[in-house]
Amino acid sequence: MKIAVAQMGVVPGHPDVNVQKMVVEIEKARAQGCALIVFPEMAVPGYLLGDEWENAAFVNDCFAYNEVIKDATQGIAAIWGNVYVDAQKRGEDGRVRKYNAAFVAQNGEWAGNGHVFKTLMPKYREFDDERHFYSLRKDAADQGVSLESLLQPFELEFDGVKRKLGVLLCEDMWSDDYSVNPIDLLLANGAEALINLSCSPWTWRKNNKRHSVVRNRIQNHPVPFVYANNVGTQNNGKTIFMFDGNSTVYNPDGSLQRVATDYIEETIHAELFVPQQTVCPNPVVSEERDREELLAGLVYAIRSFFATFQSKRVMIGLSGGIDSALSVALLTEALGAENVFAINMPSQFNSETTKGAARRLAENLGIHYTSISIQHSFENTVKELEAAVFERLDGSQALVPVHLSGLNRENIQARDRGSRVLAGVASALNAVFVNNGNKTETALGYATLYGDVNGALAPIADLYKLEVYELARFINQKKGREIIPATIFEIPASAELSADQNVDEGKGDPIFYPYHDKLVRAFVEFRLDPEDMLRYYQQGILGAVLHCEQTLIDNYFKTPEAFVADLEHKWRLYKLSYFKRIQAPPILAVSKRAFGFDLREAQNGVHYTREYQRLKTELLGK
Amino acid sequence: MKIAVAQMGVVPGHPDVNVQKMVVEIEKARAQGCALIVFPEMAVPGYLLGDEWENAAFVNDCFAYNEVIKDATQGIAAIWGNVYVDAQKRGEDGRVRKYNAAFVAQNGEWAGNGHVFKTLMPKYREFDDERHFYSLRKDAADQGVSLESLLQPFELEFDGVKRKLGVLLCEDMWSDDYSVNPIDLLLANGAEALINLSCSPWTWRKNNKRHSVVRNRIQNHPVPFVYANNVGTQNNGKTIFMFDGNSTVYNPDGSLQRVATDYIEETIHAELFVPQQTVCPNPVVSEERDREELLAGLVYAIRSFFATFQSKRVMIGLSGGIDSALSVALLTEALGAENVFAINMPSQFNSETTKGAARRLAENLGIHYTSISIQHSFENTVKELEAAVFERLDGSQALVPVHLSGLNRENIQARDRGSRVLAGVASALNAVFVNNGNKTETALGYATLYGDVNGALAPIADLYKLEVYELARFINQKKGREIIPATIFEIPASAELSADQNVDEGKGDPIFYPYHDKLVRAFVEFRLDPEDMLRYYQQGILGAVLHCEQTLIDNYFKTPEAFVADLEHKWRLYKLSYFKRIQAPPILAVSKRAFGFDLREAQNGVHYTREYQRLKTELLGK
Repeated sequence: MKIAVAQMGVVPGHPDVNVQKMVVEIEKARAQGCALIVFPEMAVPGYLLGDEWENAAFVNDCFAYNEVIKDATQGIAAIWGNVYVDAQKRGEDGRVRKYNAAFVAQNGEWAGNGHVFKTLMPKYREFDDERHFYSLRKDAADQGVSLESLLQPFELEFDGVKRKLGVLLCEDMWSDDYSVNPIDLLLANGAEALINLSCSPWTWRKNNKRHSVVRNRIQNHPVPFVYANNVGTQNNGKTIFMFDGNSTVYNPDGSLQRVATDYIEETIHAELFVPQQTVCPNPVVSEERDREELLAGLVYAIRSFFATFQSKRVMIGLSGGIDSALSVALLTEALGAENVFAINMPSQFNSETTKGAARRLAENLGIHYTSISIQHSFENTVKELEAAVFERLDGSQALVPVHLSGLNRENIQARDRGSRVLAGVASALNAVFVNNGNKTETALGYATLYGDVNGALAPIADLYKLEVYELARFINQKKGREIIPATIFEIPASAELSADQNVDEGKGDPIFYPYHDKLVRAFVEFRLDPEDMLRYYQQGILGAVLHCEQTLIDNYFKTPEAFVADLEHKWRLYKLSYFKRIQAPPILAVSKRAFGFDLREAQNGVHYTREYQRLKTELLGK
Repeated sequence: MKIAVAQMGVVPGHPDVNVQKMVVEIEKARAQGCALIVFPEMAVPGYLLGDEWENAAFVNDCFAYNEVIKDATQGIAAIWGNVYVDAQKRGEDGRVRKYNAAFVAQNGEWAGNGHVFKTLMPKYREFDDERHFYSLRKDAADQGVSLESLLQPFELEFDGVKRKLGVLLCEDMWSDDYSVNPIDLLLANGAEALINLSCSPWTWRKNNKRHSVVRNRIQNHPVPFVYANNVGTQNNGKTIFMFDGNSTVYNPDGSLQRVATDYIEETIHAELFVPQQTVCPNPVVSEERDREELLAGLVYAIRSFFATFQSKRVMIGLSGGIDSALSVALLTEALGAENVFAINMPSQFNSETTKGAARRLAENLGIHYTSISIQHSFENTVKELEAAVFERLDGSQALVPVHLSGLNRENIQARDRGSRVLAGVASALNAVFVNNGNKTETALGYATLYGDVNGALAPIADLYKLEVYELARFINQKKGREIIPATIFEIPASAELSADQNVDEGKGDPIFYPYHDKLVRAFVEFRLDPEDMLRYYQQGILGAVLHCEQTLIDNYFKTPEAFVADLEHKWRLYKLSYFKRIQAPPILAVSKRAFGFDLREAQNGVHYTREYQRLKTELLGK
């Protein structure tokens, strides 16, 4: 039995576009002799829509499209994801009740009742299924029946043979942390094949994890397993997720029969229920492959993000540092050199070294380039602001002068670049400009709000500083020539906003990236607390836990006092700098936890547990 | 039986501070002869913590504080909200399992098993209970027992009399949209009094709604009902919620025995199980009272927000328009004139009328005031940016000049004010500066990113434009003198960024606020679609649905074509301007739906349903 798996580029919020694609794919699959075509989860509406799920007109429009798709299934069967609307019932938010559902039709008719609802509702990271959808579990509880009785395979006839297809949605296969296992129930109910519709973003080594989960799920009950995932990007505003697809048809022994290409909209064909299996190898796991995937994902996501704009022009500030260097290389790869406009914006503090490196980089890429000095504007601002005096208008005529400190002056430079030059020139060119921040500085707030925090997109803000260097090196290696000039790897990372940050004198950021990258990751991704850090440090295993050489930590912090002072300083920066992230641009998520709608924060200041206080007293002996 | 209800100012994320307060209140209540003291939901950790619930060290610290509170209950009983940690089990996110729980202790011992879990999990608006907590419903399902069997009252002995207290958490009383009703189950299980611990933010006329819900819940089974709610503000970064408290003890007939003062940290006393009831009147519902509550809430929330900063100094740009006028009046009321620094930042387009009004306003308030012209800086920026030329570094030496349009120049002025002057001066004075946007312009994107979108707090961004005028008028009326000068009410609302926005010539914003305020509300709060608007318009009931005079709409749009063009223009602005809201400051939520973490959006562009297209064709006859 020949099937098609349509790895669609789902356009979230645009059912008209998606359904048009689906009907074309159904027709092609029929013409190519397929008996069944499978589409991803929420293929009609898209999945990450924010609260647009509360727009009843929109939701009803999506639901009504099911009839169009069903009518297109003459001579073929189709399974697709869409929202199911039960207008007779209310959800727990008091609105019309909705389900995340799979629909099954054949020859223009519904198979059975035509649909099955998602059982397991993810609600971690970016997922909000419980917010919007009722689940099959709740239905079972409300009806006072077992989940088993509701979770039935669909019986379809193919060439005179009846086949029971167990249909599930995404999380239903990731049941380890739930008290029910939908796959076991479907198999117990006679499913002869399992079909999982997903809308599952790329994360590090997730596909290999999935291959092993599938093998595990069917090892005692071998059946073919189909995994249909979409490509494209979807977002919740603050965080943008990239969908690699990687749709897979598994043989009953869990081996791979056919895997779709990452980040390509394509329909793959495979055979179900055949004695002779085709087998393709499991992908190799390697750091090289990780970097390939990361690079491909970032380039794809940038292209996909810009596809929604009328203009493809992008603008970027080039400082001659590593962050803007990686950003511009990615932008050029994604959008073409003809669409990239770079500006170097020196003040008196920028060295010839970095100015030269910025221009060299632009030459290597063949992009548009200019330089606009901010020195005059900066000096004018200092003069104008310091000339201002506040008068108290309560009759006292008390005066308050304005005095700018060194740090104030550094921030004025950053804002002059971000809000005056970049924003001004970008609007003139009808271009979008990007933020060059990395994850380490985003976490620690080492950036100026309304300055380098600006931008419509933060393409590398989910990469730690050393990952930025690694990926930049990988690009040079892959291109087989210098894209990012060697100088940029050699100078210290520096903001160049004062004489204390002179790269030619080897001065740079007050961050020890080999350790602080890992510390930030522990806070943000491992969800650890200073209490945990202190305990590991005391036990001498902090390096092992963080995957950072212990000698690095011991050399950097000569005393426990120095270690604790730095730990508290960084925890404080991480917590307090959230006010900047509230106003920061959307981030391309590539880690296990990205800032924004993935890691949800609150402005609640800094807290230390009692156990932390106890450990600290013990360690410092006071 | 005398009880105390502690309307605490819960400090989210700071269990040490909260527990210290709780122990003091327990001791006071015992000394005052109370047999029982009741605290709000999540009184120990706070409730809106973002994903800090995933920090196991923090959560364990909070949970362990239960022992401290239990130990303080010698000679009294206490009921309080906190997180319950089941270290042996996993939640559905794979992390340690947590419950939103109430704890009950008396005389230093747990009553029964000492705790009960929340049954109903809100997951609309700002609520994310399902994300973080396991529910009693899931426990019942996992154990294969009925919810009734788990939802038992606590039996405590007071003066030799055994009393069964039914304890619930917040949403458990708001069960209309759920398939289970915890109050009915507790009453069926013999509860002689109901005690609801809440962490429930103020919303319009919510308290009256609650009074009627309580009456309804106990009308067939009269028992005393205690509602303990906290004061303070809590946030999820993008949205800040104000908690009015309004803790209430109800008599068994649903009448009010005792109501705590809004926005005041106080402990009220009341009597349970007495034949003779004290009754205080139900609050009067009126527009006057609504405005009083709104004003009190905004002032309270601003004060509470600034309480977390070291400096109380606030800076604001005063344009001479109504939005900044209302903002500065609120800031002055909340923080005192001595802490308020206002700057007027004229360019050539600002009239003497508005400049004069701004200064007059500052005089009326007795605040600090200065004026910094942006004209020179604006001209310099135009000159510098237009002098720049991009050179294509691909050997072609193709040149791209920079030309600034009229709109580009307007935005340069706004950014000069927001990112150069306000941000620069605020940092010099160690002050926080605010955003003056209203909800209508926030929704339609009628503001400049990195310009007037800037600020650490948007105090009035959840008020529509006409509500801004109303509240400003109310302040003048309440103060019995001119705070906000009459001129400001008389001139048209205008951005004054070009000659086309000259207030002296009666020119202003391209927004018809009496209608567009209501249209925006329909989109944002009623969650309606252009399809709905068009249907109501066609049926002639749009005015009635929007609570806007129909003649206003008919006079403003002379033809269906004009109506449709405006509808599509505003829907498009609302959807596309989300890129600005992503980078906008935290908003004080006062409506049924505020931007940010309350209304969650996605950058998915503009979509019209098929039904919209059909209605449009029908209406326009083409």
